[in-house]
Amino acid sequence: MSPKLDLWLTEMLTGSRRALARIITAVENDPAVAEHAIQTLYPRTGQAHILGLTGAPGAGKSSLTTELALELRRRDLTVGIVAVDPSSPFTGGALLGDRVRMGALAGDKGVFIRSMASRGRLGGLSSTTSAVLKVLDAAGFDILIVETVGAGQAEVDIASTAHTTIVIEAPGMGDDVQAIKAGILEIADILVVNKADRAGAHQKVKSLEMMLHLGPQGGTRHHGKIIASPAEIQASSQNAWPIPVIKTEAINGKGLSDLADQILSHRTHLQETGQWLERERERALQEATALIQQRLLAQVQAQIPAGLQHEIYTAVAERKISLYTAVEQILNYGP
Amino acid sequence: MSPKLDLWLTEMLTGSRRALARIITAVENDPAVAEHAIQTLYPRTGQAHILGLTGAPGAGKSSLTTELALELRRRDLTVGIVAVDPSSPFTGGALLGDRVRMGALAGDKGVFIRSMASRGRLGGLSSTTSAVLKVLDAAGFDILIVETVGAGQAEVDIASTAHTTIVIEAPGMGDDVQAIKAGILEIADILVVNKADRAGAHQKVKSLEMMLHLGPQGGTRHHGKIIASPAEIQASSQNAWPIPVIKTEAINGKGLSDLADQILSHRTHLQETGQWLERERERALQEATALIQQRLLAQVQAQIPAGLQHEIYTAVAERKISLYTAVEQILNYGP
Repeated sequence: MSPKLDLWLTEMLTGSRRALARIITAVENDPAVAEHAIQTLYPRTGQAHILGLTGAPGAGKSSLTTELALELRRRDLTVGIVAVDPSSPFTGGALLGDRVRMGALAGDKGVFIRSMASRGRLGGLSSTTSAVLKVLDAAGFDILIVETVGAGQAEVDIASTAHTTIVIEAPGMGDDVQAIKAGILEIADILVVNKADRAGAHQKVKSLEMMLHLGPQGGTRHHGKIIASPAEIQASSQNAWPIPVIKTEAINGKGLSDLADQILSHRTHLQETGQWLERERERALQEATALIQQRLLAQVQAQIPAGLQHEIYTAVAERKISLYTAVEQILNYGP
Repeated sequence: MSPKLDLWLTEMLTGSRRALARIITAVENDPAVAEHAIQTLYPRTGQAHILGLTGAPGAGKSSLTTELALELRRRDLTVGIVAVDPSSPFTGGALLGDRVRMGALAGDKGVFIRSMASRGRLGGLSSTTSAVLKVLDAAGFDILIVETVGAGQAEVDIASTAHTTIVIEAPGMGDDVQAIKAGILEIADILVVNKADRAGAHQKVKSLEMMLHLGPQGGTRHHGKIIASPAEIQASSQNAWPIPVIKTEAINGKGLSDLADQILSHRTHLQETGQWLERERERALQEATALIQQRLLAQVQAQIPAGLQHEIYTAVAERKISLYTAVEQILNYGP
């Protein structure tokens, strides 16, 4: 490992933003660096409150992210922003108005903004995003905002990555995607109707509230758990969170105080009910599982000559052997 | 394995649609059934031309799927439709007009429609979808249309599942998501501007054509390959496909003939250039890799008591050990 990395890690922990930026770039480019950085930083992680902000293009996610960050700064909380949304103005596609507002963040040492949109493929949160969040967590940011675009796998991923998932809607949008909304409601801890000054905002709030009460959970969310004892499940059902629907007008700076209040309440709720630790455990399980699968696969593949693998998959493509036969051949290969 | 399954498989291969529907339901519900069915059917697969239809909600994917199926039927091609889009009218959310048109398909024995939207989570194509496509392939359908919603992981998945990926746009939509479009262009074999009677259609076509010519591939697509020799790479660069941009008005039945022509041309192109086999090999690699990972993980997890796993992940959640230490403990566990 580069001796520079350890120097940067030390500098980062004493507050150097330049070292932080360098570490993140290194983590993005090299999985071995990511592993070393996370090994070193792990004991310092677990403090940051990770927010997932998601919604369809046009709902105003980036404006809301900007205004929410400004509101959190007024409360003396430091904020890291990771924009995974390829349509995000944080990536460089901002309208002039957005840029002016974002300028208010840019000069603030209590804010760190990173766009990862150009790195990823369409959709999906990468393991890189997860590594970058750990670095920002260790760097001491109080709140991390991950902005992703809906609708797709990214939303599901964000719900397992974030402590608090915020789904943003806007009036007059997405009325043809009720079924998707039903899916979105399954992941939301907080619902926001942005652009609340527009026609149809009140109706949108009402329809969301109605969907919440019609849902299987009756307007509350029992956080999904992978490892759970009956006692834990019972505790969880007693500790449901009533999903709030909040109106905001990001570009006019309205509703942000309500939103920030709910975000902080949700953190308290998670911690008091033990769900914070549950979510951390669930995330550990998912991340470890992905790493274990990567390593096991690499071990198997390393044993088999590439030429033979090519032959096996060509035989499958030509229907000479079936997929399952190929799997058996690869798993049972002995030199 | 149920003896019924083998009976159904025999009936399916002699044309029974009822047996086909039963097999698909069984495949969806039980991975062991899926394995047995695919083992049995594998030699009969590989003939169907799989189309991926994707685009943002509101672009008119379902209407286009319906009209495209009707056009292909006029050419005496049989069509299987798999709707993975949770907002698809095929799932039950159709407007009246859609339903009337879809009715024209419903009575036709040369068409089979299956909605998988209710089974999946948001986004992402499941291994179940892949298994269902193999069953439909073996059942002898000439063309399989998989309808997914954009933008997200599902689009990336569809590009690796389909032989021909069709991305649908509409005028006046998504003008704020240029960056997403850039991603979509990477997966498209054919671009469709639907609702071409609306204002802005011509401009949309022009802007897409411009993006194609500005793109890294200069308006052509060199199909991604995972296993490739230098000779294959060179062959591929000589065999580029110029991505067409086609205007359609699905609800008026216009442009479908052009679209069908391009789809069939693309199949010929893939076959003549050897890319058809390449895509089959790439798919075999991906599907086998997923199965191998599942099995290896299951083997490892079966060796470790659940209580110990819970302890390890709790220790990670509490930052007593790091994620990588947990991975080592699990991989090196010996009873």
